[in-house]
Amino acid sequence: MSEGAVLLLSGGMDSATCLWWMKRELAVPIHTLSIAYGQRHRVELECAAYLAERAGVTHKVVGLDLAAIGGSPLTDPSLAVPAAREDRQVATVVPCRNLLFATLAAAWAETLGLAQVYLAPVKDDYRSYRDCRRPFYDSLEQTLGLGATREGRFFIHTPFVDKWKTEVVALGLALGVPYELTHTCYEGKRPACGQCDACAERLAAFAANGVSDPLRYE
Amino acid sequence: MSEGAVLLLSGGMDSATCLWWMKRELAVPIHTLSIAYGQRHRVELECAAYLAERAGVTHKVVGLDLAAIGGSPLTDPSLAVPAAREDRQVATVVPCRNLLFATLAAAWAETLGLAQVYLAPVKDDYRSYRDCRRPFYDSLEQTLGLGATREGRFFIHTPFVDKWKTEVVALGLALGVPYELTHTCYEGKRPACGQCDACAERLAAFAANGVSDPLRYE
Repeated sequence: MSEGAVLLLSGGMDSATCLWWMKRELAVPIHTLSIAYGQRHRVELECAAYLAERAGVTHKVVGLDLAAIGGSPLTDPSLAVPAAREDRQVATVVPCRNLLFATLAAAWAETLGLAQVYLAPVKDDYRSYRDCRRPFYDSLEQTLGLGATREGRFFIHTPFVDKWKTEVVALGLALGVPYELTHTCYEGKRPACGQCDACAERLAAFAANGVSDPLRYE
Repeated sequence: MSEGAVLLLSGGMDSATCLWWMKRELAVPIHTLSIAYGQRHRVELECAAYLAERAGVTHKVVGLDLAAIGGSPLTDPSLAVPAAREDRQVATVVPCRNLLFATLAAAWAETLGLAQVYLAPVKDDYRSYRDCRRPFYDSLEQTLGLGATREGRFFIHTPFVDKWKTEVVALGLALGVPYELTHTCYEGKRPACGQCDACAERLAAFAANGVSDPLRYE
């Protein structure tokens, strides 16, 4: 097993902060992975590429046609993205998204001879997204270990799972994360819409830190 | 939760037999799913479509760019498919393939309001592919349950996991499965190569049943 880690880098604030945190904490090569899954906010993929370049790490994009699966306004242009606090984001769930993404990261890790996978769910996600909770990732580690090509263990690290987004932003500000390169808006708008649940959470996290968000809003 | 089941239909013999078996055993709508993952034997996707049409069930194809992940001759044209019995198929493993496919089937099931997913690993797969073993699927059921959008259980059925391919073919012959519509060859050749491990297993299964394979070989 080689030294190194794979990080799922969405292009949002949390995984960007995780990347800068990993650069400080880990003395191993970092490989970042983004998934082009038909998201209407696909501008986040460009952000992920810029962030990886700025951080000086490798970056790969893998295509996964989740729009064909349907069921979420994030991949179906005919469904509206709900405004903040309507049904606590549940309506934006893409079925099994994190399981698919974490597994793709593990698959790439296996190809690279690595066993360490990082994702950046935060405590705020916990309420609405059951696949942002640690018991889910513990179970996935077991499933991956049982299914891997050769016997061995995968480690799914979620260093921010017990941190609120406000704390993650505080950490990122201290680490010098270039938040102007990140994308958050579920509508995929630049300038951002400022109205969707994702924008609302982002703005609140900056406000709680007494800092203005470097992004432009409509 | 509605009545119905999702079957991963590769276009090969085992899942085709599973489809005909499900039609006999289950009195619920069956939805079949195939994954276009960059396989060199993509002719199997056409076979899956023909099989679904013949069986009178719905069929969906979802794209997943596993070639970008690499690591297997099944998705990388620069790697040679090993001949039968070289390293017991391990060299053809696509990392985490069954975990990704079963999860995509569960995601589609969730969108359809269903909880029943069927796959057709057989006992012969067990030696080389750890993700064809029941403990792996038991663990995946738990992981899916923990990660699903709303609390609930998914059922991953593997009705042939304790049957040898020879027994599956015997069942399929009794059920009238149109094996002439299935595809097996890892090289993706029509007529089939007859040399790769997949072809060798198929030919042996027909021979053990005292029946000729309706497919043409080079």
